Amino acid sequence: METFFSFLAKRVDDCSSLLCVGLDPHPSDLPAPSAEAARSFCLRLVKATAPYAATFKPNAAFFELYGADGWAALKDVIAAVQEESDRQGSMIPVILDAKRGDIASTAEAYAKSAFEHLGAHAITLSPYLGKDSIEPFLAHKEKGVFLLCKTSNPGAMDLQDLMVTTDDSMSEGVGTQTTGAGRPPSAVPLYAHIAYLAQKWNTGNNLGLVVGATQPEALTRVRSAAPDLWFLVPGVGTQGGDLETALRSGLRADGKGVLINVARGISRAENPATAAAEMRDAIINIQYALKH
Amino acid sequence: METFFSFLAKRVDDCSSLLCVGLDPHPSDLPAPSAEAARSFCLRLVKATAPYAATFKPNAAFFELYGADGWAALKDVIAAVQEESDRQGSMIPVILDAKRGDIASTAEAYAKSAFEHLGAHAITLSPYLGKDSIEPFLAHKEKGVFLLCKTSNPGAMDLQDLMVTTDDSMSEGVGTQTTGAGRPPSAVPLYAHIAYLAQKWNTGNNLGLVVGATQPEALTRVRSAAPDLWFLVPGVGTQGGDLETALRSGLRADGKGVLINVARGISRAENPATAAAEMRDAIINIQYALKH
Repeated sequence: METFFSFLAKRVDDCSSLLCVGLDPHPSDLPAPSAEAARSFCLRLVKATAPYAATFKPNAAFFELYGADGWAALKDVIAAVQEESDRQGSMIPVILDAKRGDIASTAEAYAKSAFEHLGAHAITLSPYLGKDSIEPFLAHKEKGVFLLCKTSNPGAMDLQDLMVTTDDSMSEGVGTQTTGAGRPPSAVPLYAHIAYLAQKWNTGNNLGLVVGATQPEALTRVRSAAPDLWFLVPGVGTQGGDLETALRSGLRADGKGVLINVARGISRAENPATAAAEMRDAIINIQYALKH
Repeated sequence: METFFSFLAKRVDDCSSLLCVGLDPHPSDLPAPSAEAARSFCLRLVKATAPYAATFKPNAAFFELYGADGWAALKDVIAAVQEESDRQGSMIPVILDAKRGDIASTAEAYAKSAFEHLGAHAITLSPYLGKDSIEPFLAHKEKGVFLLCKTSNPGAMDLQDLMVTTDDSMSEGVGTQTTGAGRPPSAVPLYAHIAYLAQKWNTGNNLGLVVGATQPEALTRVRSAAPDLWFLVPGVGTQGGDLETALRSGLRADGKGVLINVARGISRAENPATAAAEMRDAIINIQYALKH
């Protein structure tokens, strides 16, 4: 069956790119902030960078800011990616960066909003409410979820780095303490436990993780806990993460499994198309060097 | 200075009520699901229950479901609460149940969306990204934040109940292990640590917690870790939480500090006004009994 990640893998092959182009119309980047300006900003970026984009990732906040008009603009932007896909004859998936997280019928409503109303192909979610808050999204079998695991901001340490004690069966391979007969429960950072859970919950090939590039040792640890999953990796460039380190730490054994998200590094470039092409090529060169 | 919780305390006194009326236009409760039907559903509820409501809590998901039209309806519903406030001469705060959580300029955009564009007085947030994801909201000094702490769903156990090991200074009063000289780091459930952090972060009297009623022992524990904070308490009624137990476990020493959220128990009642009045009175009776 086709799933979000089978669509993504096909797109990655079609365009030889692991680049996720972030569509973040920051008000400060718009001549005069409005829904219309946010729409134009994104449509221009989509048009310029589509040949090099494995995916696009619009950030819901920068549209919600304008209420109903912003929501309409967001829908138009996603539709524009669909048009570029048709033009290229290769489906470019759209990841809605919304970081939602709620339960039961509320989660179902958010899933319908993102996948049916807006037409996004995947969404970012917070893990704080647990598995039953993710399931209504995973029930859309051809759509995808990227669960927040380790984010690139300083406050990530407040919760994500806390050491959690889990049943030892749950932390095999991710613990700091080796386990054995009569073994004590092992302690792992919360983000590593999330990675373990996501790997376990991904029975439908539609669950990935958000893992920031600013702490490569965390990327390595998450890859070890979740060897099969796709990672959406923000934080390269503006936030200080290094591209080569991120790829070396995050790529799967098959040389894929990482989407490098770049927003301002492309949108603020004099020529966004060139900036996207250069980033795509830089990723290819590192992939090649790591293989040989 | 006036803050969200000083406005809330005034409203609670004005209407002698700790009732938060949830505005959840579930599609299944609407004759034919649409933004217009969601709007009518909520306007009718607001009109009927305003005299008994300390606050209203619209759930963003059930509006987002309809995209731009839903967002316009949400704005109208919040404006209708403002009109009821004017009519009563007592400001009824609106808590936007959105469970957002993002960083830096993205968090600022969500805050502007909720507080400036929509006109909500408070918002629910996820704690997963840490303090710097909350600060852009707290910077709106007259607005409030309810941070997810312990939710009422089964999946709450996946993260929130994990035992975390913290620096002992961080868990004083909330640990399971008593601390002393040469003491080991103590282990507390993640939700209790969140409560501790929120109590510490609440330097502007504008941070509260969401604590479900389905596990009264958790409510007791959160109250002990956060003696000063307001709790938004879902889960009474439909989800099985008991009102008296929730109040006994959650009320502050001053007999306030708890908002009991009821949605379907009121919206599905034959007469929502009567149902809200009865719930308000039931809370008053229990408050009285607990005091004497």
